[in-house]
Amino acid sequence: MSKQFDVIVIGGGPGGYIAAIRAAQLGFNTACIDEWKNDKGGPAPGGTCTNVGCIPSKALLQSSEHFEHAGKHFGEHGIQVQGLGLDLGKMIGRKDAVVKQNNDGILYLFKKNKVSFFHGRGSFVKAAEGAHEVRVSGQDETLVARHVIIATGSNARALPGTPFDEVNVLSNDGALRIGAVPKKLGLIGSGVIGLEMGSVWRRVGAEVTILEGLPTFLGAVDEQIAKEAHKAFTKQGLKIELGVKVGEVRNQGEQGVSIAYTDAKGQAQTLQVDKLIVSIGRVPNTVGLDAEAAGIQLDERGAIVVDDECRTNVPGIWAVGDVVRGPMLAHKAEEEGVAVAERIAGQHGHVNFNTIPWVIYTSPEIAWVGRTEQQLKADGVTYKAGTFPFLANGRARALGDTTGMVKFLADAATDEILGVHIVGPMASELISEAVVAMEFKASSEDIARICHAHPSLSEATKEAALAVDKRTLNF
Amino acid sequence: MSKQFDVIVIGGGPGGYIAAIRAAQLGFNTACIDEWKNDKGGPAPGGTCTNVGCIPSKALLQSSEHFEHAGKHFGEHGIQVQGLGLDLGKMIGRKDAVVKQNNDGILYLFKKNKVSFFHGRGSFVKAAEGAHEVRVSGQDETLVARHVIIATGSNARALPGTPFDEVNVLSNDGALRIGAVPKKLGLIGSGVIGLEMGSVWRRVGAEVTILEGLPTFLGAVDEQIAKEAHKAFTKQGLKIELGVKVGEVRNQGEQGVSIAYTDAKGQAQTLQVDKLIVSIGRVPNTVGLDAEAAGIQLDERGAIVVDDECRTNVPGIWAVGDVVRGPMLAHKAEEEGVAVAERIAGQHGHVNFNTIPWVIYTSPEIAWVGRTEQQLKADGVTYKAGTFPFLANGRARALGDTTGMVKFLADAATDEILGVHIVGPMASELISEAVVAMEFKASSEDIARICHAHPSLSEATKEAALAVDKRTLNF
Repeated sequence: MSKQFDVIVIGGGPGGYIAAIRAAQLGFNTACIDEWKNDKGGPAPGGTCTNVGCIPSKALLQSSEHFEHAGKHFGEHGIQVQGLGLDLGKMIGRKDAVVKQNNDGILYLFKKNKVSFFHGRGSFVKAAEGAHEVRVSGQDETLVARHVIIATGSNARALPGTPFDEVNVLSNDGALRIGAVPKKLGLIGSGVIGLEMGSVWRRVGAEVTILEGLPTFLGAVDEQIAKEAHKAFTKQGLKIELGVKVGEVRNQGEQGVSIAYTDAKGQAQTLQVDKLIVSIGRVPNTVGLDAEAAGIQLDERGAIVVDDECRTNVPGIWAVGDVVRGPMLAHKAEEEGVAVAERIAGQHGHVNFNTIPWVIYTSPEIAWVGRTEQQLKADGVTYKAGTFPFLANGRARALGDTTGMVKFLADAATDEILGVHIVGPMASELISEAVVAMEFKASSEDIARICHAHPSLSEATKEAALAVDKRTLNF
Repeated sequence: MSKQFDVIVIGGGPGGYIAAIRAAQLGFNTACIDEWKNDKGGPAPGGTCTNVGCIPSKALLQSSEHFEHAGKHFGEHGIQVQGLGLDLGKMIGRKDAVVKQNNDGILYLFKKNKVSFFHGRGSFVKAAEGAHEVRVSGQDETLVARHVIIATGSNARALPGTPFDEVNVLSNDGALRIGAVPKKLGLIGSGVIGLEMGSVWRRVGAEVTILEGLPTFLGAVDEQIAKEAHKAFTKQGLKIELGVKVGEVRNQGEQGVSIAYTDAKGQAQTLQVDKLIVSIGRVPNTVGLDAEAAGIQLDERGAIVVDDECRTNVPGIWAVGDVVRGPMLAHKAEEEGVAVAERIAGQHGHVNFNTIPWVIYTSPEIAWVGRTEQQLKADGVTYKAGTFPFLANGRARALGDTTGMVKFLADAATDEILGVHIVGPMASELISEAVVAMEFKASSEDIARICHAHPSLSEATKEAALAVDKRTLNF
């Protein structure tokens, strides 16, 4: 028996669930298939982002920041705390509750928008009369639709020869549910996930060492911003070793994990830790999709090959998010999901890859949009730069959080904003103004002349724009 | 003896010090006169904003929010605190230190920009050979310049017959330095200052009652937003009585203050409190300016009369900020200060009054730009509205702060954004995106189609824009 739909979405993460909702809004009879299970075996849509990524990490980052603040900074405010303790189980439990809120929220949205939800793994069966047939694992029926949107996301990349056991050797998943604060925590990879998880566990008491293969810290981030962040993280007590070559990793069960590596000076070293988080990137997930049954082309990395508009090589089959080219960001997946649903409806959905913001939710936060100074140099663009430190910002002083800066990069001739880079308090929220500005092809002069509320951190954005023309008012 | 300058600025608050710096940047030999004294009698430039306004209030709001959070919300995060105490002197001391940082910062900026600073009160003496002569109190010399910018700010309005003694009956000044947490605190006026100060003292343990003469809460704020805020404040324990008529106020020294009033039902009531903060507005400050010596025209409220470009009736004399028409906001004063300096230099400075953001730094914060729904109705504009609650925002859930919403108002025909209203976490920072959007005459569709980082509170802004077209994705 088979059920007919207009659109089937495989995967219920940010790319998938948003594509399904948008398709339903546009009048399509839409199904969304997602296999993620909660601890009771029930559906847990939202994908990596909701279950083991963006959302739970932010919950733990928030809790652990409160904890650190109480221990280290309350004194400055005249707040006296006796006997500060941590109930890690409760902290993790709160995180789980936040995840569940989001899972349930998506199920509610499916109902509200009349998206048919199927709990199981979606796999291609075959083409059927100009449409595509998709099987849902554990269910008798197959689904048939003219359009299928693949949004199956990505999985954590494991170290060769060292599989995740999620007990000692942890991916982003296990990193979010360590049962007791490890005395020593190792991380391989100093990307977003490594830095966020390293921050969480350092704040609650772990001694954290991050091993990074690259010689520079946060290579994708503007160099000046990355340097400022590196300084801040080091000061907080995160040990970051750059330019290392990781050798044998031995999972020693209850004795923890030992990591042999060569340091930047070429010396052989061993790091002995209780737990190891491996965050060396993610691989597109097509496990069990049976993409070959539909004749879908994958590239050498295992990503589904799509054109600029997310079309695969098979008519009627689309793919969005982590499983295709481009940055593995939830909001990039969402934008693609919306655009594909609109294209199926004959509209002209568009995703501007030049204005997708990036955020690292450490403290200080790091956020940016557009090109870095090193990219502009590589591209041969002549530019002007302007920076403004939060140290000179009244609200940052009042908050007691003056680390970091805002940096503007603008075209030397036209003054058009080419990049905005922020390290500092609430960078994740401040970046939205810069994205809007860049979408409107604003010049730095535009931002410099727009009124910003006083006192606010966003005044640092205005001042950085003024700095491009060397006329900061408060520095 | 007299000293010659190109530009003299009277007043070193946000309007004045910024005007002075901008004038100096533009090549003018500039003086700034400010009389504010710190507790050692030394200069304390920055005006009301820095000394007894924006900056110290934000410092206390931050400290008191930490205190409240520790007492009421740490449990949810699994953070255990035994014995939470408050050293109020230290909290106030930190606030004073933040103020001093800002005072010193301005003095440094004067030096850096070669602005001559004079500590004393500036008063007009007379016109002198096509220029204006200004005396500085306590100093022998007078200053002469062709251009004078008046930026003397405003003072708290007192209740008729009840002068501020700053011991029992407090203005914004005394409200920032109460020596011990009052058991009962009364406030007359539920405006920005009342709500911010009421919040600070409630959080640290005072029982706070606010008496408001108007029948509606926060009449200048969009009604829907004001209602949401009212609900939140009431839930927090702020007692807000609307539509009251305040009668006799008796300052009883060590017995506190008794306030006779008629409640909204017409019943006679008495409120007995330990301290009373009066925040019923502010009056332009021209005390000791001797404006008449220069022939400067004042209006019936005591404000200096200026045209759209901040010119007074006397050629060469300008006025900016609280002492002239328009909202009494630091950033409005700053924009005017910059614009006037540029006009003196023959440039075309401009202040867009339609895109000046407003912020109330309570928790939840309230921020808005553009027109409210009630203003649009009064103006006969046909509009569409869209709202999105923070309850449905992933980051707000992770933060544990889901109160409030973002609201968009857009022209029914053109979709141009006419107003953005936010009550909720970090509203003060989220509003900057809306200001930029309105400066570019963005439509709500524009914001709905711009990528916003996930997870971020700014996604609620995008969703509210989507709501204008009834196509929210996450609600």
